[in-house]
Amino acid sequence: MVAKRKPMPVAEAVQAVMNVGNEAKKEAIPLANSYGRVLAEDLVGDHDVPSFDRSPYDGFAIRAEDSTGANRNRPVHFQVVGEIGAGTVFPRAVQAGEAVRIMTGAKIPAGCDAVVMLELADEHNSDEMSIKRALSPGDNISFQGEDTKKGTPLVPKGTSIDPGVIALLATFGYAEVPVAIRPRVGIIATGSELLEVHEPLEPGKIRNSNAYMMAAQVERTGGEPVLLGKLPDDLDACIEAVSSALQEVDMLITTGGASVGDYDYVPDIIERLGGNPLFNKVAMRPGSVTTVAEIDGKLFFGLSGNPSACFVGFELFVRPILRRSLFFEKPHLKRTKATLGKDYPKPNPFTRFVRATLEEDDGRFVAKPGGLDKSGSVTSIAGADVLIALPGGSRGYETGMSVDIFLLDDHKGSEWPWENIVASYKS
Amino acid sequence: MVAKRKPMPVAEAVQAVMNVGNEAKKEAIPLANSYGRVLAEDLVGDHDVPSFDRSPYDGFAIRAEDSTGANRNRPVHFQVVGEIGAGTVFPRAVQAGEAVRIMTGAKIPAGCDAVVMLELADEHNSDEMSIKRALSPGDNISFQGEDTKKGTPLVPKGTSIDPGVIALLATFGYAEVPVAIRPRVGIIATGSELLEVHEPLEPGKIRNSNAYMMAAQVERTGGEPVLLGKLPDDLDACIEAVSSALQEVDMLITTGGASVGDYDYVPDIIERLGGNPLFNKVAMRPGSVTTVAEIDGKLFFGLSGNPSACFVGFELFVRPILRRSLFFEKPHLKRTKATLGKDYPKPNPFTRFVRATLEEDDGRFVAKPGGLDKSGSVTSIAGADVLIALPGGSRGYETGMSVDIFLLDDHKGSEWPWENIVASYKS
Repeated sequence: MVAKRKPMPVAEAVQAVMNVGNEAKKEAIPLANSYGRVLAEDLVGDHDVPSFDRSPYDGFAIRAEDSTGANRNRPVHFQVVGEIGAGTVFPRAVQAGEAVRIMTGAKIPAGCDAVVMLELADEHNSDEMSIKRALSPGDNISFQGEDTKKGTPLVPKGTSIDPGVIALLATFGYAEVPVAIRPRVGIIATGSELLEVHEPLEPGKIRNSNAYMMAAQVERTGGEPVLLGKLPDDLDACIEAVSSALQEVDMLITTGGASVGDYDYVPDIIERLGGNPLFNKVAMRPGSVTTVAEIDGKLFFGLSGNPSACFVGFELFVRPILRRSLFFEKPHLKRTKATLGKDYPKPNPFTRFVRATLEEDDGRFVAKPGGLDKSGSVTSIAGADVLIALPGGSRGYETGMSVDIFLLDDHKGSEWPWENIVASYKS
Repeated sequence: MVAKRKPMPVAEAVQAVMNVGNEAKKEAIPLANSYGRVLAEDLVGDHDVPSFDRSPYDGFAIRAEDSTGANRNRPVHFQVVGEIGAGTVFPRAVQAGEAVRIMTGAKIPAGCDAVVMLELADEHNSDEMSIKRALSPGDNISFQGEDTKKGTPLVPKGTSIDPGVIALLATFGYAEVPVAIRPRVGIIATGSELLEVHEPLEPGKIRNSNAYMMAAQVERTGGEPVLLGKLPDDLDACIEAVSSALQEVDMLITTGGASVGDYDYVPDIIERLGGNPLFNKVAMRPGSVTTVAEIDGKLFFGLSGNPSACFVGFELFVRPILRRSLFFEKPHLKRTKATLGKDYPKPNPFTRFVRATLEEDDGRFVAKPGGLDKSGSVTSIAGADVLIALPGGSRGYETGMSVDIFLLDDHKGSEWPWENIVASYKS
């Protein structure tokens, strides 16, 4: 009556999901809408920046050799032969003894090789100025290509587009930006105990929080959540609902109903739809009861209905494949180390992923487990910046120990974070 | 001819901006749209979670006292008198020797005080099971209120809404969420050297990258960018354009044209519109030529046209006031420490904000200056995770020194990060 489930190690389970192909696809969108999207092509500079020698200051462009010998007692005089606003170009080569009034950002005129800062020039009248200090060739010039040279790879595809990347995209003329199409991720909640968010509480029932939580997790990861409501109570109707949902989305998540109880339809749904189950139990807490299958080339995730377990299951199994289909080179959770900021006395026979807040203490990460540490807890998720990975086999952990953590609100990621997660130690 | 400008210390300039009132306002939006917005009211639990004693497992609810003495050799038998799916309630109190089949999440029936996990029960037929181990009262029960109690403050207003906060909002029935109205921030680029992003390069001209970059900075901060194009070349038309822009937005940023050159209209615009200039030069690099004024109670920012200077000016001066009008308690850039990951040999007479990428090395921040470190650089902005604050008065900094950094992609912030920024030291 009770289906026997053999737990799969976490790394193996993640790998099984990643083995299912999920091609990244791209589209072109207007630059002004591209913040937070993911670059789908390498950005390579197609011209030098600056694209011409330019003045970093307001001042006078001169030939440096003409200033030789200038000092406090013997100023050198120049004839001011014109001016160049930013965006305009001086029409002829500058001759010996001539200076051109130049604005910040304007192109250095032919013949000139230095700029006198405005504050250091004595202007005598509109066509004469003098300086009291000699300049060397190249003084106060921003040279063509000094910021970056044509052909330089600047931002690799799979990078989350931030304000700095946008500045580069604009500089290189990307009015339209090639970005990853946001994979559509269907979300279905199951469970007859679930009330809609707007409904008043009833005895024995809870409000559906997982669907909204996961929609936000999908958004944070870079996908497009598609809320598909609840599954019906009848198996045939369920199968029909899942089957038609799978037509609409790139991957599908259900939450709840995947426990070992009598009412769990998930294994039947997978079987009846001819799916290929990858695993149905993982050697971890929370989230041990996690099912993933491939159905018609698409991933079907059956996550736990317990909020903390659902949350962790998403981050470990859904996020990386979603990130890979967004061109991320490092699709997994970014792993680093932190100091444990609070005792964790609970004996720990299983590999555990503890929701924690991250603080910095003089540039060092400190991770503090937050809220109730149970699979069904919802408070431990709010304010969770990281998951602390605590390998099984310990009697508990003490404040000050060094622990492995996975960053949740991160765009950099890890290539493969699952090697050598060792028991924590006190540093 | 050259307007004399007295540089104001950074902290004083930031304070001057913060002194201009900018009231935070709220609106109600659907829960499903609330990811990334900012909570405008404190979230306090209005009921216990769980709201009833419930079963964390599939199994049998029993009276613990009935199991006394059960062991491998002497199993104790129970009569199974019914079952409770999640969301349903058992209609009567359970009596001595009775058990009720219970699903994960279901309400513990009256009379019961323990749950036998399904795997540990021997089911003999549909109405009988036995166990080989005694239970204590409370075993395998998730108690009402164990996650959080009614009336507990859970998330303060001014918190960025992440998946965990959404789970709580759903749990407490927030179908509509009170969030901060995103302040509208107008962005105007100035400069006759500016090409539109789609235009081909021309001699002496550059593409307008600052406007798009700042729009993304506004989005990252939580505001709504309003791209208002370029200013006309004529002063009266400029004044008219700024004046009408100010009607439309909550604050206005211009970039470019705020240098000491002849073509700078910004001071005239402020004066003609009866504005109150807060400062027009700041003792820092890049971004020293930054003007801020109050015009009719609204902030007008005249940022440098140099990309790096514009970027830094935004983060230091625009971001905090924008965050404050989003209910953030800690509106300023989050300050912490990092190890300098690369020599910074440049002599440093001024307080400098160096764009850098942040890496973690075993839980310790390492900040590496990236790209060309000049005011006009655009490459140094791409990939910038932090600003390294390097106080003036040093001959340069070496790898391994401890430096103050400000995190850019952060939702936590600092209350006031401008005290005691000291010269770096080698730790």
